Amino acid sequence: MRTAVIDRLKKAMVADGLAAVAVGSPENFAYLSGFVVPSQPLMRWRHAFAVVTVAGDTAVVCVDMEAATVRGQLPGVDVRVWREFSDDPMLALAQVLRDFGCAHERVGVESDYLSVGDHDRLSGHLPGLTLTPVQDRLARLRQVKDGHELNVLRRLARISDQAVSDAFAAGRVGGTEMDLASALTRSVYTQGAEQFKLMIVATGERSMLPNVGPTQRVLKPQDVCRVEIFSVIYGYHAGVCRTAVVEHASPEAQHVWNNLVECKHLLLDTIAPGVSTRAVWERFRSKFDELGMPSISFVGHGIGLHLHEEPYLADHCTQELEPGMVLGVEPLVYDTGHGFGMQLKDMVAVTDTGCELLSDVSATDELAVVG
Amino acid sequence: MRTAVIDRLKKAMVADGLAAVAVGSPENFAYLSGFVVPSQPLMRWRHAFAVVTVAGDTAVVCVDMEAATVRGQLPGVDVRVWREFSDDPMLALAQVLRDFGCAHERVGVESDYLSVGDHDRLSGHLPGLTLTPVQDRLARLRQVKDGHELNVLRRLARISDQAVSDAFAAGRVGGTEMDLASALTRSVYTQGAEQFKLMIVATGERSMLPNVGPTQRVLKPQDVCRVEIFSVIYGYHAGVCRTAVVEHASPEAQHVWNNLVECKHLLLDTIAPGVSTRAVWERFRSKFDELGMPSISFVGHGIGLHLHEEPYLADHCTQELEPGMVLGVEPLVYDTGHGFGMQLKDMVAVTDTGCELLSDVSATDELAVVG
Repeated sequence: MRTAVIDRLKKAMVADGLAAVAVGSPENFAYLSGFVVPSQPLMRWRHAFAVVTVAGDTAVVCVDMEAATVRGQLPGVDVRVWREFSDDPMLALAQVLRDFGCAHERVGVESDYLSVGDHDRLSGHLPGLTLTPVQDRLARLRQVKDGHELNVLRRLARISDQAVSDAFAAGRVGGTEMDLASALTRSVYTQGAEQFKLMIVATGERSMLPNVGPTQRVLKPQDVCRVEIFSVIYGYHAGVCRTAVVEHASPEAQHVWNNLVECKHLLLDTIAPGVSTRAVWERFRSKFDELGMPSISFVGHGIGLHLHEEPYLADHCTQELEPGMVLGVEPLVYDTGHGFGMQLKDMVAVTDTGCELLSDVSATDELAVVG
Repeated sequence: MRTAVIDRLKKAMVADGLAAVAVGSPENFAYLSGFVVPSQPLMRWRHAFAVVTVAGDTAVVCVDMEAATVRGQLPGVDVRVWREFSDDPMLALAQVLRDFGCAHERVGVESDYLSVGDHDRLSGHLPGLTLTPVQDRLARLRQVKDGHELNVLRRLARISDQAVSDAFAAGRVGGTEMDLASALTRSVYTQGAEQFKLMIVATGERSMLPNVGPTQRVLKPQDVCRVEIFSVIYGYHAGVCRTAVVEHASPEAQHVWNNLVECKHLLLDTIAPGVSTRAVWERFRSKFDELGMPSISFVGHGIGLHLHEEPYLADHCTQELEPGMVLGVEPLVYDTGHGFGMQLKDMVAVTDTGCELLSDVSATDELAVVG
């Protein structure tokens, strides 16, 4: 279990009047344990829970199929195994809470993840329990990364950045989006990522669609190629997006790209501890308006154990930036009015004095060329 | 929307006394709509719901970010868009139910997916609503695939099968698991899959771990290589797993492989309509015992819009097989007692008279060789 994280959580539990926290989402399980149970995010009934009490007792609940993997990752930890098809995982969780003396206490759970069926079953097993939402507290703790997390995210940002370059190098006129996709994923694994999420390969008119994967669409000269990938290690994500043109840029594409680069630097110059997220958003938004480009509802977001986390650089968010926060910053236009969209997404970490560009593989702001 | 599916669902709703069904899991949304909203499975607060009434009214609720993609996929469908950060998606869903005259009716929801927080919010918006679990009914409908679904699954099975072969061809002594992984994923995309899930690359002693991805582990002669991938199109999955040896097999590996092949054919000979899933399991289990091999708690499972679905070929399941069911069948041993594990997973469809092997790319049962 991650001692530093658990120490921070224990303090929060005192403040929140919680006797224990029991989390079952892949991201919060990984936050407390340091790893992802392989099949948990894929089969949501294969429940895994991490339990921490305010006194510092910890235990993990997992399915029999993953017991060897979990015990291998957590030597010395109290691992409770439930049998798929015959046991109720909520009963195993209830037993842990009972063993920890919490059967009549306030326990924090993720009310945005725990299904209503599981919630009712747990309450049925322990009628004296008071369940209370804890996801916002955990999300707040997760916002500020420690040194270990920053190292992982820096490595991931470079993997994603390099992979996008490798994808562009694999494209050519007459080839398809699949060529970009296969080079992209190959690069991610070759560089040592455990997996990836949400690959975007959107070329030509498809570059106007937000989150689409690759198709057999054939590349032709002047096509715009929007490519993003989120690499994953220990459950942490880094997403980097670049846009390239096939062979040469139309004047419109070059113009939009120059605007995005200008906004990237404006964001890098603005992001610093103590600055409010809304202030960053407003400065960006005013520049984007001035450039005549339509914005979506945010220009950046926290990232870590989830693809998108608070704080957002957006109108609805007024948090102050703090050292250790990691953000994806992404000036983009889905519909430029010229039949294509463009995006430029980097990863940055807030430092003591400003911010560090984590996705720094390519030292150039030039519009990449495919073929 | 998928008319044939909705017609079957309407009949079920009459039988179950439901005025409407509102589903928000990626698999059931895809089942009713025919496609996956790209970011829905990745960011679970980006709710998308498909709503069907017993009268046949249909509507879809989606986040603003995905509105263009959803409208493009569902021309003519009533699409309700909620704005991320400012709107409550449960209010948008409540409005659809109110518009359809269901505010005081029994409505089926997925109590194993809908979070307790969202459940309470929806109930708060429509206090007259009676919410009742519908996931088992949908899972039962999804078990029997129609012609379109069978075609997709046949194509996916071949993609996964070929990809595993391509991965083995890319391995060599001194190379790493990452070489297998990059060839595997490249092949999946080159062949036209939209994405993949749960890639397993487990070599040497790591072949004993159930669901692990690739690492930088270096391959050496006689290593066992367990490789599986689930390819995905339209949200449908096909998983194929093969085990290879590097350069040449130890006598133990050859022996275990021969046993797995024997069990594969026993399963293919046994699976037929009218046969109970437990009977298949018991026949397999008795053979596995006779061969002196330890089994896990199932030897197969339904597959389709979810990685694992009922029916399982297992002790807890007594369903009769029906034409149109698609199963992953997977004789495997994680711990052979010789420091390695082996697995042989195929995809089969139950036909009118027996079963069809969908993962039929390789016509041989020989133990594959890497390097």
